[in-house]
Amino acid sequence: MPPRYLSFRCSVPWLILLLQALLLLRSFLGFPGVSDTYSSSDSYPEFQDVNHMVIFGFGFFLMVLRRYGFSSTGFNFLLVVLGVQCSVLAEDLLLGWCRTADCSLWSHLAKAFVSVTAVVISTGAVLGRASPVQLIVMTLVELISFYVSRYINETFLEVPEHLSGMHVFLFGAYFGLALASCFPGAPPGLDKNRSTPKSELFSVLGTVFVWVFWPSFNSILPFLKAHKVRAVLNTYLALAVSAVAAFMLSALTSKDGKFRMAQIRSAVLAGGVTISYSAERIQHPWIAMILGLLGSGIAILGSHCVQRCFNPALKLQDTSGVHFTFGLPAVLGAVATVVHRVVEDGIDTRWNELSRLGYDAFVYIGAFCQTISIALLTGVITGLILNIKLLKAVHVSKYFDDQFYWEVSLEIISD
Amino acid sequence: MPPRYLSFRCSVPWLILLLQALLLLRSFLGFPGVSDTYSSSDSYPEFQDVNHMVIFGFGFFLMVLRRYGFSSTGFNFLLVVLGVQCSVLAEDLLLGWCRTADCSLWSHLAKAFVSVTAVVISTGAVLGRASPVQLIVMTLVELISFYVSRYINETFLEVPEHLSGMHVFLFGAYFGLALASCFPGAPPGLDKNRSTPKSELFSVLGTVFVWVFWPSFNSILPFLKAHKVRAVLNTYLALAVSAVAAFMLSALTSKDGKFRMAQIRSAVLAGGVTISYSAERIQHPWIAMILGLLGSGIAILGSHCVQRCFNPALKLQDTSGVHFTFGLPAVLGAVATVVHRVVEDGIDTRWNELSRLGYDAFVYIGAFCQTISIALLTGVITGLILNIKLLKAVHVSKYFDDQFYWEVSLEIISD
Amino acid sequence: MPPRYLSFRCSVPWLILLLQALLLLRSFLGFPGVSDTYSSSDSYPEFQDVNHMVIFGFGFFLMVLRRYGFSSTGFNFLLVVLGVQCSVLAEDLLLGWCRTADCSLWSHLAKAFVSVTAVVISTGAVLGRASPVQLIVMTLVELISFYVSRYINETFLEVPEHLSGMHVFLFGAYFGLALASCFPGAPPGLDKNRSTPKSELFSVLGTVFVWVFWPSFNSILPFLKAHKVRAVLNTYLALAVSAVAAFMLSALTSKDGKFRMAQIRSAVLAGGVTISYSAERIQHPWIAMILGLLGSGIAILGSHCVQRCFNPALKLQDTSGVHFTFGLPAVLGAVATVVHRVVEDGIDTRWNELSRLGYDAFVYIGAFCQTISIALLTGVITGLILNIKLLKAVHVSKYFDDQFYWEVSLEIISD
Repeated sequence: MPPRYLSFRCSVPWLILLLQALLLLRSFLGFPGVSDTYSSSDSYPEFQDVNHMVIFGFGFFLMVLRRYGFSSTGFNFLLVVLGVQCSVLAEDLLLGWCRTADCSLWSHLAKAFVSVTAVVISTGAVLGRASPVQLIVMTLVELISFYVSRYINETFLEVPEHLSGMHVFLFGAYFGLALASCFPGAPPGLDKNRSTPKSELFSVLGTVFVWVFWPSFNSILPFLKAHKVRAVLNTYLALAVSAVAAFMLSALTSKDGKFRMAQIRSAVLAGGVTISYSAERIQHPWIAMILGLLGSGIAILGSHCVQRCFNPALKLQDTSGVHFTFGLPAVLGAVATVVHRVVEDGIDTRWNELSRLGYDAFVYIGAFCQTISIALLTGVITGLILNIKLLKAVHVSKYFDDQFYWEVSLEIISD
Repeated sequence: MPPRYLSFRCSVPWLILLLQALLLLRSFLGFPGVSDTYSSSDSYPEFQDVNHMVIFGFGFFLMVLRRYGFSSTGFNFLLVVLGVQCSVLAEDLLLGWCRTADCSLWSHLAKAFVSVTAVVISTGAVLGRASPVQLIVMTLVELISFYVSRYINETFLEVPEHLSGMHVFLFGAYFGLALASCFPGAPPGLDKNRSTPKSELFSVLGTVFVWVFWPSFNSILPFLKAHKVRAVLNTYLALAVSAVAAFMLSALTSKDGKFRMAQIRSAVLAGGVTISYSAERIQHPWIAMILGLLGSGIAILGSHCVQRCFNPALKLQDTSGVHFTFGLPAVLGAVATVVHRVVEDGIDTRWNELSRLGYDAFVYIGAFCQTISIALLTGVITGLILNIKLLKAVHVSKYFDDQFYWEVSLEIISD
Repeated sequence: MPPRYLSFRCSVPWLILLLQALLLLRSFLGFPGVSDTYSSSDSYPEFQDVNHMVIFGFGFFLMVLRRYGFSSTGFNFLLVVLGVQCSVLAEDLLLGWCRTADCSLWSHLAKAFVSVTAVVISTGAVLGRASPVQLIVMTLVELISFYVSRYINETFLEVPEHLSGMHVFLFGAYFGLALASCFPGAPPGLDKNRSTPKSELFSVLGTVFVWVFWPSFNSILPFLKAHKVRAVLNTYLALAVSAVAAFMLSALTSKDGKFRMAQIRSAVLAGGVTISYSAERIQHPWIAMILGLLGSGIAILGSHCVQRCFNPALKLQDTSGVHFTFGLPAVLGAVATVVHRVVEDGIDTRWNELSRLGYDAFVYIGAFCQTISIALLTGVITGLILNIKLLKAVHVSKYFDDQFYWEVSLEIISD
């Protein structure tokens, strides 16, 4: 092992220390509105749900690779706890502390968890190929880019705050893809790059957790109680239909009618992504159900197209399939929101104010395009930075291997 | 593989599609009382608990067989999300939408989850022997039979709604047993029909989840807040005593004082089943504790009698022991409720109105007998229908095998 | 196997039966304030969280040894459900039933769960070396000693109730260590005394659960709503920083910059232990964050010192490292509380009442020393009692082996 590797591995703790020291310093200087820091907000249960979903759910959801269990859960845990703190700091600096009525530290932590989901999703795209140093740098850059993108959306395009927060899936997926395109691919014969039934079972465990807590996630940003209730119910309906459709489509699209667990894991979650933008506005259960069905459909069909045509053409390796699990359903959800809003407003105004409708639609589409562009651009830039010789820490032969980062007993080899 | 198998496997997605299309159509036509659909009900946390318990808890509770992990969790997930939707529809059509004060979609979903538990329990009896097509047909027939049975109970025997809902364990277990008696048994030498320590650990994980959430389950149907609190507390006490008794009895009844995990898993849950009917009425903690003890006892003793005498005599194979886990404790709970009610009413009226007491007891017993009869009858009929040549999809040699339904890597064989 | 072993194994169920009968008798005679038994308290959700954390979280947290999975989870489950009941009884007899405003059975169960945590922690120290009989006797003695220690604290040293309850980590860890010192050590060449990646993964699963629910645990004893909110937030901040620091320090202290999962599991939880005394009083987020950092630091550095110097010198075997996971962080937390209180009171009174400050500090330190002394003393006595020839049930060669207590299939051997 060349000494450069070692030296870089040794830089992980110092990087973490530096970050943590900055965060401590900021909290020592005092958060603005410190008198409200411990205000008796009732958002603990929903914060707890999202905490569960991101740390436990996604941590185990990512545990697909057969020799990468420790790193999947462990690094996810590290990035989330670090990212949440950076995110509180970034929101404080970039967007200002107390813009809404609820400015307790609680609601800030809840929002930070939503933002950190972008990091978790991007991690999925480079799972097993990025070293901890690269992942930590990525977390920082991604959170800042996401806040910049949100700032543009909220300031220039006047997107409401809770909607701009829901761009997190779109941003995370495309940032991750752009990033992954800059990493050298794994050699084709590598057999660590596979899942075993045991690792799949842990991943199913995580997926079920994410699925169950998704309604809480989609309802955390809306501010009114009535909107929260609606978001929860619509998300649940979309998730239920998308789970049913996942089994149906997986059997339909496979050669001999067998189910494929990897596809089902993606498609089951796709409904929650698709509905995320419009969950709090939809007035009829059937719209939510249709969106869940479409989300699941695009995830399964997307997984075929993406894996067979798109990825090989671009020489892209997307380890845990974030493109069709989060990217495509988020695009679908974005389009659906625009259509839904325009139709709803059109019916309200009896289609009299077509020019205003067109303008609104234009603004919404602009917000989505802006988010994707920034995600792709900053993703590629981050990918290039991460792969300069100085930082390039992992050789291709060390991909997807816990032993490179963790002290594990030798048994894992004979396992 | 004969083409008939293939053709039937290919019918799964179409069957699911048909069902989902019907459900979408119904929701498009509008649920009655649609203005209340998104009413701001506070039942989300308890709905969430039951959701967790049924999807995550039972999904992993069933993961006993060593080569059937994907199917156990996956099919349980599919049946629950499909069954909840069918159940909302069936309740709407058969029992009418808005019979109680709380007619939001929330409370309907919560009730639907309770009904779906019957399906989950029945699945346990034919685990590994029924194909997805058979399971989906079973779900439909069972939910409809259960609603018919509830309708008879509520209309002719005037059982209160929340009590008739709690017949779900009784119905599920005996429906499952009647169904299982119609399936050809696995050949004796089959070694896929076993558990490994790894699969047992996942099953323990699921059991602990079900155990922890059971108080929420038993408190979801009572309407008054005070009844809910009482139901939660009594259920917790019964569960605690039943868990202690499970270890005690398992060590007592085994040859050399060792514990048996399979027995403990059953007996730990038996307390929750036994208390389910009377949890909201019991006024003294010690009654709940005694019921938990008895429930655990009947589960452990039942497992000996049932597995040694009853099952071989009837040539019945009950894969995950639903008879002694859910059936016998539910019968015990039913008897205990009748005794408890009669004694309580007797003390209240100083035993002056013996004829009314006798009539009440008669009606309660009638309700239980009617539930069991319908369960057994419809179970046998469903079993016969499912095993006609047209639908008979799984050969005995393909029992208990994930590979027949899922695309799994070859490693599972050498695992 | 000598018949003495068998005869003792057979005594487990009778011991459990005796205990359960006593508990039933007590509950039959009626808890004082029985009219409030079912009072409509709102503490169910937080009780549920602690229930989850202790049964599920710690059960899987302890699942480190490769052949001891059933016993780790199973015995933890048994001890918790038994201990909670004994604890309600012991609190009733020793401390009196209704000392605070909230005397429903709910709040008693919640407090009982806190006390039982001491037993769970002590179990970790003798994991795999104590038989179920020994563990049950230990549970009884430890709970009674803990209540005696709390009684002394509350009566003579006037420590508030919720603070004396938080001595549970200190008491549990040092009781466990004193106990472990009396057990004969495992022979050095024993290879059952190791973890595999699979068992580590289950343990990570449990750790994440404990981590996520810790804020609920630290907020269960304070009575005022505002204090609860503060406790939750401070605990979360301490846990977040301690998780980040755990990764940092683990990489720093290892030979070649690799992470060590066992260390990280300990250090991640250490923040929650350190903050537990002062969570409800801390007014500034940065103090909580510093405490989390120090807790994590002492856990990682402690694990080096303890495992290399302290344990070999004392011939102590501490199976799951409770000394550095719970013991040292609790000592640090105790010291930190004293400093924090004295400084806070000093600032409030402008350092005018130095003698009162000194007296207060003296009392607080007295309470901690008294707790540790009683823990060590009763621990050693219990250890000696448990290892008299009459009770000495497990031979060294049977250590760390599920097969000695559970009926497991033979496959576990070839596994």
